[in-house]
Amino acid sequence: MQHLGVRLLSVSEGQVELALPYGDKTTQQQGGFHGGAIGALADIAGGYAALTVVPEGMEVVTVEYKINFLSSHQGGEIRATGKVVKAGRRVVVTTAEVVHIDADGKSSPCAVMQQTLAPVPQTY
Amino acid sequence: MQHLGVRLLSVSEGQVELALPYGDKTTQQQGGFHGGAIGALADIAGGYAALTVVPEGMEVVTVEYKINFLSSHQGGEIRATGKVVKAGRRVVVTTAEVVHIDADGKSSPCAVMQQTLAPVPQTY
Amino acid sequence: MQHLGVRLLSVSEGQVELALPYGDKTTQQQGGFHGGAIGALADIAGGYAALTVVPEGMEVVTVEYKINFLSSHQGGEIRATGKVVKAGRRVVVTTAEVVHIDADGKSSPCAVMQQTLAPVPQTY
Amino acid sequence: MQHLGVRLLSVSEGQVELALPYGDKTTQQQGGFHGGAIGALADIAGGYAALTVVPEGMEVVTVEYKINFLSSHQGGEIRATGKVVKAGRRVVVTTAEVVHIDADGKSSPCAVMQQTLAPVPQTY
Repeated sequence: MQHLGVRLLSVSEGQVELALPYGDKTTQQQGGFHGGAIGALADIAGGYAALTVVPEGMEVVTVEYKINFLSSHQGGEIRATGKVVKAGRRVVVTTAEVVHIDADGKSSPCAVMQQTLAPVPQTY
Repeated sequence: MQHLGVRLLSVSEGQVELALPYGDKTTQQQGGFHGGAIGALADIAGGYAALTVVPEGMEVVTVEYKINFLSSHQGGEIRATGKVVKAGRRVVVTTAEVVHIDADGKSSPCAVMQQTLAPVPQTY
Repeated sequence: MQHLGVRLLSVSEGQVELALPYGDKTTQQQGGFHGGAIGALADIAGGYAALTVVPEGMEVVTVEYKINFLSSHQGGEIRATGKVVKAGRRVVVTTAEVVHIDADGKSSPCAVMQQTLAPVPQTY
Repeated sequence: MQHLGVRLLSVSEGQVELALPYGDKTTQQQGGFHGGAIGALADIAGGYAALTVVPEGMEVVTVEYKINFLSSHQGGEIRATGKVVKAGRRVVVTTAEVVHIDADGKSSPCAVMQQTLAPVPQTY
């Protein structure tokens, strides 16, 4: 996250919002946000949301996710909101919506993700 | 790809193999390869494989992908092999297998991906 | 749908709600709603939602979907609400939420789905 | 499975093959195999493959699956081969390939699936 320049916008029980500004490290050959950067941001947003609902002493690992890319964007920043759909003992299920915010603050859909995580004992 | 240090290992009709060495930019807090880096490598491997089967003058955009993470690894490198499962006019479907290669050259499963792409006219 | 006994509860621009009552044809060995029936209902709900947004003379085919099962249920019925997330020229993206309604009318989460469809000219 | 007429073709450690004949219960309005039937067959094939690798006294529940439909077919039968990709303590990951076999025995790709299951203590 630090490497890409991700910012934490908000955290509440079961929900986390992150932002990623446009920059050299997050662009693809055609000049838009790279799918890899969008996927990573959605994955992290879902993972952080899951972290807010697991018992103390536990962390989460991503079992899998599925992401649909809705449109490509240049400049501005992207924001991912991760939400917990189910907080189970064995698995936590989340969704994330990624939107693009242009230079004028206008928001438009960028991607949607559905993710499965597993609670595991903290290793650090 | 250049930013992360991705290497192209092989290309043939409908199949592409890429490698990503372990490094600062691709690690997560626990010290293993970050899911975002694994997802990006798989996405790119599937996309390049799809590029080998679309008509001249076309490129591809990723519609969506789904990735399962099988185990976490440190050091060495990860390799993703993207393969075309269906080359349709409207959509191209690919799978990718990601393996980890440790310092001794030993290979172990890392992730599997299933992806949908759309052929579009080249914009560059 | 007729075979399984699916009922159409509501239709609006970009959104469709379906219901499937509990019965012999939709149960698995442990006695709950079968995943296959839940998946089919979610797939159909997303597909019908997509149908409400494609141009006249077009229908839709399911390119792919991904579904997470949240809990298992017996008796009552399940309801799936399909919603269009993106209505593109090449692909339509939808999500569906499936809930279980027990004999007392109490609702609880059952499954979430994310789906990609392609608009195609009508063949009938 | 009995309801739809599914046949078990082969079972080995980590791999199961099933067949589903064409019939009234498995067709959609345009007359091809219904996506719901294809999804159910793939789900069951992956689940049975997973069952062959979990410890005695355990069964499996489907956490999620993702399926791509490759082409539509009428008549003949469809066959799904489920394979275990990872047999973990917390999750089992499988893939399934579904092919269509026409009246002359010719095979063609129908669908590919990627699935996550969780081992749970037997309840029956």
